Amino acid sequence: MALSDLIKVERNEAGIAAALGILKQRLGDRFQTGQDIRRQHAHTTTYIPNQAPDGVAFPRSTEEVQEIVRVCAEHRVPVIPFGTGTSLEGQTNAPGGGISVDLMQLDRVLAVNPEDLDCTVEPGVTREALNTYIRDTGLFFPIDPGANASLGGMAATRASGTNAVRYGTMRENVLAVTAVMADGRAITTARRAKKTSAGYDLTRLLVGSEGTLGIITSMTLKLYGIPQAISGGVCPFPTVEDACNAVIATIQMGIPVARIELVNALQMRALKNYSKLEYPESPCLFVEFHGSEAGVAEQAESFGEIAAEFGGGPFLWTKVAEERAKLWKARHDAYWASQTLRPGAKGLSTDVCVPISRLAECIAETEADIARMGLIAPIVGHVGDGNFHVLVLMDMENAQEIAKSEEFVARLNMRAIGMNGTCTGEHGIGQGKLAFLESELGESVDFMRMIKVALDPQNIMNPGKIFPLA
Amino acid sequence: MALSDLIKVERNEAGIAAALGILKQRLGDRFQTGQDIRRQHAHTTTYIPNQAPDGVAFPRSTEEVQEIVRVCAEHRVPVIPFGTGTSLEGQTNAPGGGISVDLMQLDRVLAVNPEDLDCTVEPGVTREALNTYIRDTGLFFPIDPGANASLGGMAATRASGTNAVRYGTMRENVLAVTAVMADGRAITTARRAKKTSAGYDLTRLLVGSEGTLGIITSMTLKLYGIPQAISGGVCPFPTVEDACNAVIATIQMGIPVARIELVNALQMRALKNYSKLEYPESPCLFVEFHGSEAGVAEQAESFGEIAAEFGGGPFLWTKVAEERAKLWKARHDAYWASQTLRPGAKGLSTDVCVPISRLAECIAETEADIARMGLIAPIVGHVGDGNFHVLVLMDMENAQEIAKSEEFVARLNMRAIGMNGTCTGEHGIGQGKLAFLESELGESVDFMRMIKVALDPQNIMNPGKIFPLA
Repeated sequence: MALSDLIKVERNEAGIAAALGILKQRLGDRFQTGQDIRRQHAHTTTYIPNQAPDGVAFPRSTEEVQEIVRVCAEHRVPVIPFGTGTSLEGQTNAPGGGISVDLMQLDRVLAVNPEDLDCTVEPGVTREALNTYIRDTGLFFPIDPGANASLGGMAATRASGTNAVRYGTMRENVLAVTAVMADGRAITTARRAKKTSAGYDLTRLLVGSEGTLGIITSMTLKLYGIPQAISGGVCPFPTVEDACNAVIATIQMGIPVARIELVNALQMRALKNYSKLEYPESPCLFVEFHGSEAGVAEQAESFGEIAAEFGGGPFLWTKVAEERAKLWKARHDAYWASQTLRPGAKGLSTDVCVPISRLAECIAETEADIARMGLIAPIVGHVGDGNFHVLVLMDMENAQEIAKSEEFVARLNMRAIGMNGTCTGEHGIGQGKLAFLESELGESVDFMRMIKVALDPQNIMNPGKIFPLA
Repeated sequence: MALSDLIKVERNEAGIAAALGILKQRLGDRFQTGQDIRRQHAHTTTYIPNQAPDGVAFPRSTEEVQEIVRVCAEHRVPVIPFGTGTSLEGQTNAPGGGISVDLMQLDRVLAVNPEDLDCTVEPGVTREALNTYIRDTGLFFPIDPGANASLGGMAATRASGTNAVRYGTMRENVLAVTAVMADGRAITTARRAKKTSAGYDLTRLLVGSEGTLGIITSMTLKLYGIPQAISGGVCPFPTVEDACNAVIATIQMGIPVARIELVNALQMRALKNYSKLEYPESPCLFVEFHGSEAGVAEQAESFGEIAAEFGGGPFLWTKVAEERAKLWKARHDAYWASQTLRPGAKGLSTDVCVPISRLAECIAETEADIARMGLIAPIVGHVGDGNFHVLVLMDMENAQEIAKSEEFVARLNMRAIGMNGTCTGEHGIGQGKLAFLESELGESVDFMRMIKVALDPQNIMNPGKIFPLA
């Protein structure tokens, strides 16, 4: 079956018309149906086509989300949660129309508990807003997917990013969620204890469910003390394989590296041009260490020694905040820097993740495939986790090139799966990777489907995402 | 409704008779129905009454587990997974009879991947057996619930223990499971990548499901490098509150403490008598630090300074393995040491977990309740996580005393829930805490039930545990 068929959702015209009327009446100005606003609330990132919802609701409380879901449940109308719209796999699209629920007005920090290293926030709080809010407490929330995403969206897609190698992903850092389920009931999945063995782990079931089981309306998150000291730097390597081997040795040694990012030669060229950094155009590791003053120096020295064993170096590192900031700004600008490699092109981002022992091989095969196909596609990676991104730069006017890029991505996803990895380390399945989930998890997908049908029998919660129901 | 009614499961006599006949024929000597062996495979720890299964199967492969489950599914007969039988809440009981599936002959380490810091094991491998097996690789598996439990049982109950404050619980350390589901199909919930956003987190759904959704027949677990150095020691405090405040400060400072265990005054008296340790009979913290030679010294010094601020000390610590081993042996012998406080008594162990900011208050109220009721009940706790155990020593011949102890435990569970905590940090709900889950999680329990009914419509997988289905 073609992907377009797999993700198809029938429109329920009568139900949609009824829901539009009721929601307009109930929410007034906080329910919008203008074309621009509807299109902005569908998929706008990367190249997956935009499928606009029929209306956009702007609730301000869990109770209002419940009311919206109840109306949609009664009329069997799709409900699609929306945060900052920075997801990459079409998660916010409305293939069968329906109501986009924009959660950005649920933006309160409900509680900060410094002694417990946790906080409770609404889903529209962004990670940067949270970190600004809590700065005075000496605490921070580490998960950093790059974009200044909403925390609700990050939970829904099980986001991670550069710090995950040390601090984990949203999976490890959400203690509890309050979610509005398909029948309109709101549940809170856990209390605020750091660990629990009380029943099924509904928190982890909702984290990563991409809005298909419920709409998260608040979350309790773990926080961490801002490290006393941070050191960081960049280390060039002769080959990607050498760099990967240095990563493996670093982690095996138990060095608690906070970030360890691979940038391949092509991406380094783009960074040099864009960020004016003086580094060789060879694969580099960007690393950062968190700890005590003595600890971060020790970690950096140990890493430098390991790097040298694998032909890497010179490893220049610093504890000076401004210098570190410049490096990481460059790393975070990778997406924009890449655009300079092919002005006017649109980027298609991938996110496979493999066991780290297979990482060098996976990247090498992928680089060879890029060369063979004549694509322009730099690579950056959260290599401490075995996770890397290829950004395929495509001319969107050229259908043949898009098809070729999709072929490349399909091969990349299957390569990762073949190496006992996943087609998605952090972006989620959405629409874009729907064709790969069964290759990856086999009959497990049947059991996901059974859960979906049990919890959302009318299939109104973000339908057409993750797996086909038929 | 009384607990005895909540956990009741009707016996299906005809189905059980049919399954017994078929399984005897298929498995031969590896299917046993003698009374002793049946009773050994029901609940034997603490005071919950023994409810024996009708037969015990000893499969040696996933396929054999599938065959057993298929027979039981066809005849609608309960299937109860069994490991070392060290669970504490009646998880292995067979309230409606049925077949105990003893998984201890699935005891192979299937793969160790040192570069990936993971391994794949069958459920009958115990944590000590795994650590012995992998010692030469320089790696270890940190989760330590005290008992030398089977890893399958630890996953099924979401176990944790003394190291969880640094290394997390089974929730964080199981990368994937293979499980035989109620229809006899075997699924593998994830591949070997360190992180994934591919679909619903079935791994976390099965971890902690106490055998009610599927039988785990293999698991991929995270491993860690054996620390280069370990330091540890014991620090007395004037009061439990002072000790708890020192714990909070230690964690807020970002000191990556590997273990931080509270032992209250009564338990210290028992330890002194049993283990011949020279410590005052006041609340103590047992602590351990993992890291580099310099790092563990720095951590211990920093902790000592914090302890002093809260009136604690002297903090005597050591890097000498033999001295540390003696301390931790004493801590691990707490259960046996407690018995000396009341020879002949049976211990009822609790495991509430609260936000750490409420820990001192929760323990103080609990100690006052113990005194008021005239119970003998020492306390130890994984206080870095806000988790503590009260061991109520009961005369099993005295029904009134048992009732009084149950009253005390009910109040303790509700106290923890009232402080935004959980009635079970690590033992699970089983039968023993079934009456508290709804108080803790409200309507979330309905959604757990919906998942249970969807995945096990005949209710054959460890029925009568976690929540009532009716």
